[in-house]
This record gives sequence, structure tokens and C-alpha cells, in this order.
Amino acid sequence: MSKIGNPEYPIHELILQRWSPYAFSDRPVSNEDLRSLFEAARWAASSYNEQPWHFLVIRKENTDVFDRALNCLVEGNRGWAKNVPVLVFTAISETFARNGKPNAAAEHDLGLAMGNLSLEATARGLSIHQMIGVLPAQIQGTFEIPESVKPLTAFAVGYAAIPELLPDDMRDQETAPRTRKPISDFVFEQSWGERGDLPD
Amino acid sequence: MSKIGNPEYPIHELILQRWSPYAFSDRPVSNEDLRSLFEAARWAASSYNEQPWHFLVIRKENTDVFDRALNCLVEGNRGWAKNVPVLVFTAISETFARNGKPNAAAEHDLGLAMGNLSLEATARGLSIHQMIGVLPAQIQGTFEIPESVKPLTAFAVGYAAIPELLPDDMRDQETAPRTRKPISDFVFEQSWGERGDLPD
Repeated sequence: MSKIGNPEYPIHELILQRWSPYAFSDRPVSNEDLRSLFEAARWAASSYNEQPWHFLVIRKENTDVFDRALNCLVEGNRGWAKNVPVLVFTAISETFARNGKPNAAAEHDLGLAMGNLSLEATARGLSIHQMIGVLPAQIQGTFEIPESVKPLTAFAVGYAAIPELLPDDMRDQETAPRTRKPISDFVFEQSWGERGDLPD
Repeated sequence: MSKIGNPEYPIHELILQRWSPYAFSDRPVSNEDLRSLFEAARWAASSYNEQPWHFLVIRKENTDVFDRALNCLVEGNRGWAKNVPVLVFTAISETFARNGKPNAAAEHDLGLAMGNLSLEATARGLSIHQMIGVLPAQIQGTFEIPESVKPLTAFAVGYAAIPELLPDDMRDQETAPRTRKPISDFVFEQSWGERGDLPD
């Protein structure tokens, strides 16, 4: 299954092909692919090239650790995430390593790295599903993450599977068309609320 | 000029080709390209599909507005940014439109949208340079941005130019190789600090 977006203007096919499935097959993800996902994240831009991102990889075959990882997700994410072959927790350093000052771009720059990672996944036929629905204190304690590092999200990595495996409510969401606000809702020109020359 | 990264593991060429120049040519950016950049941003994932991002486009040819925009950047960014054909301010809604609750993923999700946008730019031969060095209160006041929306970054859009046009210190930075931490510094497995099976 794939869900191609329906764009107003032409964009690169990898951006259109990316989507976030809930149904993952049990096909394992190779170390080769995982390395390239993190390599893609590595080359993202970041404020002062700080690279504030951290990743913690949990594999389903390590059942004890995987169960502890599932308990770090909010209830609503455990049902589908228990089937994914790889779970990754993300975290950020909130201060610059070189001077200890706050890094106002840390969360944003993790997002940039995840943008790269998700497109690399798409290029490899893999899917990821990101979750903000995690229990940060639980992650911090379970995996003994230092106080200086803040857990933020988790994501599943694997191969999208047929949505028939999902419970009813999730199956409807899985097969619904992808929707987005029109550009005119979120791009202004010259001053706030002005549409400018961009709409054609 | 281009600056290809030197990856440890293979990744998609668009991710490798992307970099952030300071020297921009005065070649204008077409509306067609700008539309596709925001279209790319539009299709990013976001928490609850909130799409919390906003963009305000300022063109150099509108000199009065452009001057006011330059005054919304920190001093260190004005010198090079005064030459770019298009400046864009980014902002986020910090609460969900549907229920007014805080959106803990808003900054992160703007980063995801910027990841898409910067890869679309690379695919079109354009470059962007993102800045966290902005004056948020100045942006908010100058462009009458509603209180519910928080300015976060700015970015330049244009075509990279020859670095000879830059002052000495920026020229050195512009022509230096791109560097990144090794993956083993920021990817752990099973528990914090463990390298696991990923390094080959």
C-alpha cells in the first residue's frame, strides 16, 4: 500500500511518497538501512552545527528491552507499535556543548534531522511513523539518559503492511486520503495576512 | 560552487548536496519555485496533522519592507542577508487549533517542514540558509504577527554565488569542508552509551 499526496504544485517524488503508516510488517530492517537513516540525519543543518540530536535504537527481537520501550509510549501508541521491528527514541541536548548556553533551535533542528531521515527511509522503501505521544520521564529513567539530555519523540521504522491487520478505527485512518491546509492558509507575503503574488 | 558532504554510509544525493551558503547571487527566484518550496513544506508530517508552521515571504525588490526585515535579524546576519533575493520568516502556532492545548511538537514539526523545503530547494538548484539569529519581538511587532503565533527562525532563498564576494572570515567558513560528529557519538542501542550492532 502507498498513499501519494495530492499536491497543488509540483514537488519531489520522495516528499510526496512519504507517509506514516500504523500497520508494519514483521519484515526486519537491515543494519545497512539503519546506518543510512542515521547518516541522513547526520547531514542535516543545525544552529552553529551543534547537531543536538540523539537516537536510541530498540529492536523487537530484544524482547525485554522492547517491552520496557513500549511502556515508555502513551497507551494509544502501544497497540500498533508493539508490532514494529525497530523503535527509536529521540532526544536533544538543550545547551551548546561549547559554551553551555541554551540552544533555542534544538527541537527544531531535531525536526530537520528527522526530515532527512524520513526521506532516506522513503528512498529505501522503508516507512517511519513519528510519535510525540511518549512518556519523557519514563524514557529518561528506563534508559538512564543523562539529565542534560531531553527525550522528545519516538519513531517506528519498518515496512508498511496491509491495513487489514489494524483495528477498525485505525484502519479507516490508514486508508483515508492524506489532507493538508492550502498554502494560502500558512504562507503570507510582505505582511501578516497578505496573500501577495504567490497564489497563481 | 558546491560542497558535497563526505558520508560514512550511502545516502540520497539530495541530502548530501544540501548545504547553507552565505554568498547568494542576485539572480531572482521564480514564483513557480517558491510555490513548490512551500508545497514541499506542506506535506511534512506533524503531530495530529496540525501543520503548526507559518511563513512570511519578503522580497528584496520591495526595499522598504526588506529593510525592515533585515532589522529583525541579529547584527551578524544582516551583512550577508542584505544580498539575498528572498527572506522568509518562520513562525509556529504553539497550541492546537482544535482544542487550544499546548503542542509540544510545534518547533520540531516546523523543523520537519523545513527539512522538506530545503530538499525541494536542493532539487531545484536553489539554496537556503536558515537562521535562529533573529529578533522575535521585533518580528512580531514589525509584521503585526498575532500573539498566538510565535516567530522562530528566518531563512534566505536564492542561488549560491562565488565566495570571493564575502568578507575574509565568512569566506573561510564558506569554503571549509562540511564536518559532522561520527554516528557513534549520537546513536546508541538498547541503553544509553551502548554502541550495539550498528557500527560495522
